[in-house]
Amino acid sequence: MNKYFAPEWEGFAAGKWSDEGINVRDFIQKNYTPYDGGDEFLEGPTEATKKLWDEVMELSKKEREAGGVLDMDTKIVSGITSHPAGYIDKELEKIVGLQTDKPLKRSLQPFGGIRMAEGACESYGYKVDPEVEEIFTKYRKTHNQGVFDVYTPEMRMARKSAIITGLPDAYGRGRIIGDYRRIALYGIDMLIEDKKRQKDSVCGSMSEKKIRLREELQEQLNALAEMKELGNIYGFDISRPAKNAKEAVQWLYFGYLAAVKEQNGAAMSIGRTSTFLDIYIERDLKNGVITEKEAQELIDHFVMKLRLVKFARTPEYNSLFSGDPTWVTESIGGVGIDGRHMVTKNSFRYLHTLENLGPAPEPNLTVLWSTRLPKEFKAFCAKMSIKTSSIQYENDDMMRVTHGDDYAIACCVSSMVVGKEMQFFGARANLAKCLLYAINGGMDERLKIQVGPKYRICEGEYLDFDDVMEKFEAMQEWLADLYVNTLNVIHYMHDKYCYERSQMALHDRDVKRYFATGIAGLSVVADSLSAIKYAKVKPIRDENGICVDFEIEGDFPKYGNNDDRVDDLAVDVVHSFMDKIRKHRTYRDSIPTMSILTITSNVVYGKKTGNTPDGRRMGVPLAPGANPMHGRDSSGAVASLASVAKLPFGDAQDGISNTFSIVPGALGKDDMVFSGELDLDALMKED
Amino acid sequence: MNKYFAPEWEGFAAGKWSDEGINVRDFIQKNYTPYDGGDEFLEGPTEATKKLWDEVMELSKKEREAGGVLDMDTKIVSGITSHPAGYIDKELEKIVGLQTDKPLKRSLQPFGGIRMAEGACESYGYKVDPEVEEIFTKYRKTHNQGVFDVYTPEMRMARKSAIITGLPDAYGRGRIIGDYRRIALYGIDMLIEDKKRQKDSVCGSMSEKKIRLREELQEQLNALAEMKELGNIYGFDISRPAKNAKEAVQWLYFGYLAAVKEQNGAAMSIGRTSTFLDIYIERDLKNGVITEKEAQELIDHFVMKLRLVKFARTPEYNSLFSGDPTWVTESIGGVGIDGRHMVTKNSFRYLHTLENLGPAPEPNLTVLWSTRLPKEFKAFCAKMSIKTSSIQYENDDMMRVTHGDDYAIACCVSSMVVGKEMQFFGARANLAKCLLYAINGGMDERLKIQVGPKYRICEGEYLDFDDVMEKFEAMQEWLADLYVNTLNVIHYMHDKYCYERSQMALHDRDVKRYFATGIAGLSVVADSLSAIKYAKVKPIRDENGICVDFEIEGDFPKYGNNDDRVDDLAVDVVHSFMDKIRKHRTYRDSIPTMSILTITSNVVYGKKTGNTPDGRRMGVPLAPGANPMHGRDSSGAVASLASVAKLPFGDAQDGISNTFSIVPGALGKDDMVFSGELDLDALMKED
Repeated sequence: MNKYFAPEWEGFAAGKWSDEGINVRDFIQKNYTPYDGGDEFLEGPTEATKKLWDEVMELSKKEREAGGVLDMDTKIVSGITSHPAGYIDKELEKIVGLQTDKPLKRSLQPFGGIRMAEGACESYGYKVDPEVEEIFTKYRKTHNQGVFDVYTPEMRMARKSAIITGLPDAYGRGRIIGDYRRIALYGIDMLIEDKKRQKDSVCGSMSEKKIRLREELQEQLNALAEMKELGNIYGFDISRPAKNAKEAVQWLYFGYLAAVKEQNGAAMSIGRTSTFLDIYIERDLKNGVITEKEAQELIDHFVMKLRLVKFARTPEYNSLFSGDPTWVTESIGGVGIDGRHMVTKNSFRYLHTLENLGPAPEPNLTVLWSTRLPKEFKAFCAKMSIKTSSIQYENDDMMRVTHGDDYAIACCVSSMVVGKEMQFFGARANLAKCLLYAINGGMDERLKIQVGPKYRICEGEYLDFDDVMEKFEAMQEWLADLYVNTLNVIHYMHDKYCYERSQMALHDRDVKRYFATGIAGLSVVADSLSAIKYAKVKPIRDENGICVDFEIEGDFPKYGNNDDRVDDLAVDVVHSFMDKIRKHRTYRDSIPTMSILTITSNVVYGKKTGNTPDGRRMGVPLAPGANPMHGRDSSGAVASLASVAKLPFGDAQDGISNTFSIVPGALGKDDMVFSGELDLDALMKED
Repeated sequence: MNKYFAPEWEGFAAGKWSDEGINVRDFIQKNYTPYDGGDEFLEGPTEATKKLWDEVMELSKKEREAGGVLDMDTKIVSGITSHPAGYIDKELEKIVGLQTDKPLKRSLQPFGGIRMAEGACESYGYKVDPEVEEIFTKYRKTHNQGVFDVYTPEMRMARKSAIITGLPDAYGRGRIIGDYRRIALYGIDMLIEDKKRQKDSVCGSMSEKKIRLREELQEQLNALAEMKELGNIYGFDISRPAKNAKEAVQWLYFGYLAAVKEQNGAAMSIGRTSTFLDIYIERDLKNGVITEKEAQELIDHFVMKLRLVKFARTPEYNSLFSGDPTWVTESIGGVGIDGRHMVTKNSFRYLHTLENLGPAPEPNLTVLWSTRLPKEFKAFCAKMSIKTSSIQYENDDMMRVTHGDDYAIACCVSSMVVGKEMQFFGARANLAKCLLYAINGGMDERLKIQVGPKYRICEGEYLDFDDVMEKFEAMQEWLADLYVNTLNVIHYMHDKYCYERSQMALHDRDVKRYFATGIAGLSVVADSLSAIKYAKVKPIRDENGICVDFEIEGDFPKYGNNDDRVDDLAVDVVHSFMDKIRKHRTYRDSIPTMSILTITSNVVYGKKTGNTPDGRRMGVPLAPGANPMHGRDSSGAVASLASVAKLPFGDAQDGISNTFSIVPGALGKDDMVFSGELDLDALMKED
């Protein structure tokens, strides 16, 4: 980089970002314009936007009528440059680029698993080309095949019984956020130059780690070259930096497009782009080359493209995720470590798309909430939340401590510094089932087979709290060990057979890797332990001696009522399981973290979990994330939230989610619902 | 296995091999019949053999007429079951199985490198199918691509300048010997059962090493299943043990055939099969189900098949190896650790194929020579050597100490215990060039560019021995480091993209891996150092100060005359370079070894090496292996051999080769040329 100041940067304040190397955060900090005003400047949709969106709506209608999928690739294997340019309506589109050659046509992505790709096609009446099948069976091993080649019988069994659930072993793990802004700011050529320098720096004694890294860096270089080609396909030269707002949005989007062309990940989040792009828009506005109407149009068209991102998935996948989510999470707002809030006009514009294009779950617009956000923006958020129920909130005051002010959320709660940190996504361990295994000596209560270790079962007419706790601890030890080992296999194979080269190309050389684990069924566990401790729980055994039901005599405190007697049990479980996870060696020296997060998959997990000692019936959904069990938080919303807020973030750094439905007045006020007084450390996903 | 005694084993003495698990050595030791007699029992070729061989000769003639290749696959990617059954003349063949559907049709093996495969085809006027090219470019990365993705500029440069030469980075490394005998003895099903047990035993904490091993074991299991299918394709059920000699040969050959269908390795050796198979032949002879004529016919047909093994290779490859060798090395004879020699009638039969089918370089029949081999066998070897010049000899008395009595030779000198040890083949470092780099401060004398580190050059009118030695030591340090790192990259990638699953399927779980390095130009180095020390060597510098020639004033002792003054210099170099190799971390914790071995490639290496201080001219071939420079060993054959014999085997455990042309009478006797008195620790390849 060496103090080169590109002509495209004219008007920007120089800094480390221009003088010392890739540093998007520095560019933002040196150049962004905090906005304290209200939403009065916002513009409605242009005619082009309306027309385009109508066309998209029409296509979506056709998609629904066609049974969920409009068209599918069955022969072209998706890659960065696999398709010619595709458009909704070329003349009208300000921001271009589709995953395939037509909108809503699902691409074929077999690297994660050919059976998954075939299953997805077959579900909608398509058939993968036999040649492609042959290639990915005979010549090119997939992630899924690699994993199942290595899985131990115990891992397969734990997967089958669903004590470990939703593992990314048959699909792309996702949860990696490329720093797509780099393309806009630097252009591909500077990124290539930097990446080559990175590769050169990995030298000396060729350990396997270094060999792997050098190969990965070369793969990243190849991906960068292909991104440039992707630009060419659409008629743009993205080798150089973007010179205006339109190019900045377009360049950035090409990076993201490359990612979704290569990876069908469980979550393909976009990062933290709004304030970055605001800098370009502000410059253009100042120079009179763009109007507010045009600025909003750019964002509307960009968001429209993000809404069009779709993957070919199987019904099983969709049922696990209650739909077909892509988790195009965009992180908005937050506060900088210098104390300035990071809300810009573009933060408003992004949220305003919910009006211009109507509400939608994607992109997953996530406000990084802080008590110090400007009042007008808070009001606007509240207004848009009430209007569209489409905004996610997360606690920036908490996450900023760990991650600084250039992190973003992947999926729904996973925070990572953009371009510097990534995550190995690890799905969840079902702790409710683990508790049943503790009681039943490792026998699965539904399958009636031995899955866990043959530890002693809990005996006696009533469950004894100390006895159960001791056995639960031991069973958690087993589960944590198995869980980490299973994830080690998965991530080794994903790196080997389905490496995210285009996303990692937009990262630094030395990324910090989080090894994300997760738990499900926390409130069921807390309430069950509370019932055993504070009431009397009588196990009902079947002919094989397996406890298949429980009779509860007496009442017991329930999680979600700000009652320390049970809330402490929840806290203890979180703390204890995370400590057990930490004991194990994690792939690539990654840093173990844990999430208490399910927004929808808890339904499926509940189906596979028998009756629990808290009185929950077999098959009933577990509560989502860290939520109290539905209806048991009888002391009001604040008490419910207070229980959740006790959970230790340090032991659940990958995020704690709380699905929270709200009606006006629930918090005792009609307006300004999310005021500074309510300091949540939980995520609130409204749906 | 558990004490199961298969009906096919009727008549064999039981032992660990039947009671405890896979143990071919134990089977051999318990059952083989040493033979002390002479060659009088041998039979000539049957009519079928003659007819078949004539057909092969006819095909070979056509092959030569067609420019070296008769036919090539350009579309079918070679695999264990890729082709239907192929025959020379089905009715006549006692042992069946071809690499493709027709004899001498070269198979297409792109996993090592698609460019190599394409180059091989194009050299002979064929064109690889574009679809295959696409698959191995876009979807399936090859070994070659992996290596070049990771090579550092320094590695590429060292390869270009040929200070490191003949690296297996664009072709299969070979040098792995599957224990093909296991298939005959146990049948595939027992091997699968055993392999599954091996896989089950790799459990617990899932480190990357364990994950890799579990995946490899699964790949091995897949290969075993495919071998069974290969048997089916030819109408044989090899799931069970072989029940007679014909089946034993056939079963064993199917294992080898699977290997050469999957791997185009630099050396695809067959192991130590003759005494093993003799046990089956003896049993059949005793039971009257076979005659000696039929026994010989089986071996003749088997050997004929081995002679037919061919690979598609490029002219560059062929020029490096002076031909198109497959190195189907079969190790014959030797002595057991219990003192009994291991010569059987079948040892004679194998050598006798040189008469029945005529002399040939393949299979590379290698006698494991011991002073304690029976006299009649020694005489027969001598007779056949004189007659056919087609026998290789290696020192069993030396290798037995390290490897016991069930090792075999891979390629020409690499010894390994069959099924328990393997080798990462590592080609050679050119020490003659390294000496020139020491003198020239890392500048390449031919390319006139900096390749090695910019150390100080040797200055002054005459080269000073101590000064040269000091700089030579330093340059060797650099070279050893770079060489090991380069090989680390190569073997990582070969395991990743071109893993020898079928060969490794016929190994134990925990194999001992040798990390084979090699040196070329030893005698040039020894003589150069001797000239510098004992004569006066005046460097001639070009305009850039690079020494491009040397004037020698006075005489100096030359390696190959049993003169310690120079022989010690050779010994020191071997010892010192091996010690430098040992300093470095080697891939997969393999054990570093070194060979002093070139039989033909020294010609190419010499081409790329400038004038040397011993008076050798630029471009003149280096001496092969550990040989003295041609014509400089003026003190007779015994003195020449004595010089070679001084080289420390402990520092060159991968083998020391001495190419030795002999005329009757050279050793002073007319008969019994290879007597017990001549205890070589060198290999003698007659050509």
